[in-house]
Amino acid sequence: MRFLHTADWHIGKKLHGYDLLTEQRDAYRQIKAIAEAEKVDAIVIAGDLYDRALPSEDAVTALDDMLVDLNRQEHFPLLAISGNHDSGVRLGQGSDWFKSTAFYLNTRLEDAFTPVVMDGTQFFLLPYFEPFAARQYFEDDSLKTVEQAMQKVVAKMVAAFDPQMKHVLVAHFFAAGSTHTDSETQVQVGGLNAVPVDLLRDFDYVALGHLHRKEALQNEPTMKYSGSPLKFSTSESLDTKGVWIVDTATDPVTVTFKPLKPLHDLVVLRASFAELMDPDKAFPVTPDDFVTIELTDTAPIANVMQRLKTRFPKVIELHRINQIDVAPKTLDIDQVQQDPLTLLGDFFETVTQHPLTDQQETWAKQAYQRAQKEEG
Amino acid sequence: MRFLHTADWHIGKKLHGYDLLTEQRDAYRQIKAIAEAEKVDAIVIAGDLYDRALPSEDAVTALDDMLVDLNRQEHFPLLAISGNHDSGVRLGQGSDWFKSTAFYLNTRLEDAFTPVVMDGTQFFLLPYFEPFAARQYFEDDSLKTVEQAMQKVVAKMVAAFDPQMKHVLVAHFFAAGSTHTDSETQVQVGGLNAVPVDLLRDFDYVALGHLHRKEALQNEPTMKYSGSPLKFSTSESLDTKGVWIVDTATDPVTVTFKPLKPLHDLVVLRASFAELMDPDKAFPVTPDDFVTIELTDTAPIANVMQRLKTRFPKVIELHRINQIDVAPKTLDIDQVQQDPLTLLGDFFETVTQHPLTDQQETWAKQAYQRAQKEEG
Repeated sequence: MRFLHTADWHIGKKLHGYDLLTEQRDAYRQIKAIAEAEKVDAIVIAGDLYDRALPSEDAVTALDDMLVDLNRQEHFPLLAISGNHDSGVRLGQGSDWFKSTAFYLNTRLEDAFTPVVMDGTQFFLLPYFEPFAARQYFEDDSLKTVEQAMQKVVAKMVAAFDPQMKHVLVAHFFAAGSTHTDSETQVQVGGLNAVPVDLLRDFDYVALGHLHRKEALQNEPTMKYSGSPLKFSTSESLDTKGVWIVDTATDPVTVTFKPLKPLHDLVVLRASFAELMDPDKAFPVTPDDFVTIELTDTAPIANVMQRLKTRFPKVIELHRINQIDVAPKTLDIDQVQQDPLTLLGDFFETVTQHPLTDQQETWAKQAYQRAQKEEG
Repeated sequence: MRFLHTADWHIGKKLHGYDLLTEQRDAYRQIKAIAEAEKVDAIVIAGDLYDRALPSEDAVTALDDMLVDLNRQEHFPLLAISGNHDSGVRLGQGSDWFKSTAFYLNTRLEDAFTPVVMDGTQFFLLPYFEPFAARQYFEDDSLKTVEQAMQKVVAKMVAAFDPQMKHVLVAHFFAAGSTHTDSETQVQVGGLNAVPVDLLRDFDYVALGHLHRKEALQNEPTMKYSGSPLKFSTSESLDTKGVWIVDTATDPVTVTFKPLKPLHDLVVLRASFAELMDPDKAFPVTPDDFVTIELTDTAPIANVMQRLKTRFPKVIELHRINQIDVAPKTLDIDQVQQDPLTLLGDFFETVTQHPLTDQQETWAKQAYQRAQKEEG
């Protein structure tokens, strides 16, 4: 059994106002091409298919097109779950029909315990759920955290294990590094919502969604986040996005990463305004790339965003990394008694690390004189 | 070929704040029972399955349950279209899979021209559409009205007719009575949005949705609105709701009405407040019925709604049918110079047709004296 593991498509997501459907459709085509090239027997999508519980009609059309294409046209069996961004009820509309063509979409906790069996492998499809749903399902009010709920969930799945088969869990939550493998106890980072990876060791492979970086669980060769197919934030600008190809025939399972090439990249540029606007200076971006700019200047720059966009049309974030933090100061009597123009000059220099230019000083004088006249 | 024709389920609709899902589920069960008893070969649902483009999760669950039950459990072929209340895109999610079990759901104009063929009958499933969509589809900017669009739509359907078969149109729009059959030219009532029934004479049967009364097209034996399964407004209180059973084996087709019994009725009560509150007086309503009250009183009644609800818990509308319209009057000088208490008494009597009682006169005097004191 050989399958492709992806997750967190977030169809319909916007990046600082920019629609990503073009990029998402391109990533989809690459995923399909990998599935074909790798001759996988199924495709696993571990939640957050949509970006919102109430996706736009365009997003609904886009995802429907992809799923119809994968399953109805290309005949790939699909194993999918809802994530915390999806509305399980809305995403699950029609899922009763999907099974007829081996498209298994689980959106309800109670359906997670009947595995989908393919080619000697049991797939347990566990949608994102709140502790509240587990309390209802297990009729156990003591289940306050996802970790407590997962102990019961896993026990119930293990009871359904066929020992002759491999066992794969598809899930969407925050799995936290164990003390056995990581130097830090990441469990504490996740707090109430984290599931310790040690709880999941009964499975031959855990196909996770939720975190957007494939490196989120570094020391677990058979528990993986696929990560998102696209970079969705500046913090992911250096990530390599992709999917996992998982082979359950070996013991342990074999896991291979297949990268996706972004149609339009998300790039961070750190430079001064003059460098960025210099027509002779080349930057590794295309006009369609999403750009976060870290401006090294300290002096004020008029209409900075508008001007930067003439060169980089899709600036999504602008940071002034050398901005001086001006701590609130108490002025002493000496300072207050100083000439207002001197005070202004000092303040300007503190904030920008530049003295007033002659032109700026002339403007300041004129403004001050006009203010005095109005007072009189 | 024998089919059941229903429409306008409006799943998720609320009646003046009251959820109707219980009543809608009951009506659904009756429709299914009729389909079983009548041994129909298919069920036609002519649009407005949901009440809103963005139905609640409860509504999505309810409709999904009904469709799964009808088609997956009971194996009825379904022929359905989206109406103006539905979002075609959202309702159509997954419809590509539905076909595998003979559930044909058309939500796009372009799919209306390939008939679904069953048992010697061609079904043309035409979803609700705007003239804009027809301009795009036919690449014809001259199509400004639904009537103009329907001329092209029908011509294209007729071109696909198999003369050996019967032809049924399933549609959701305002079909207007023709001058040939009705005394009034109802086309003019509908204005730009009306489709004259004469345009639809090529079909052996036209299964319509949109209008909620089955009597909407009185003189057309083979063009029918099924009407809604429930009464959705006071104006429908005397309607008999139901579905049509259509037999295409005869020529013309045979059409039979099958009524639905409301779980909780919508009743109009016309009486005085005293009669309505009289414990010895019986009214033909149960505590779960929806009640519109037409109050015959003219005198003011304190907390009238609150008190009526102690007897009729689900009052949805309250009308004072004997309320006197007080036309704005110009006071002449004589009137203005009258004593304020006389003016008040006159006004009260004009509005309520009752003179002030002694108690009310006492209250008025006290209030006036207090006001004078405050002035002084």
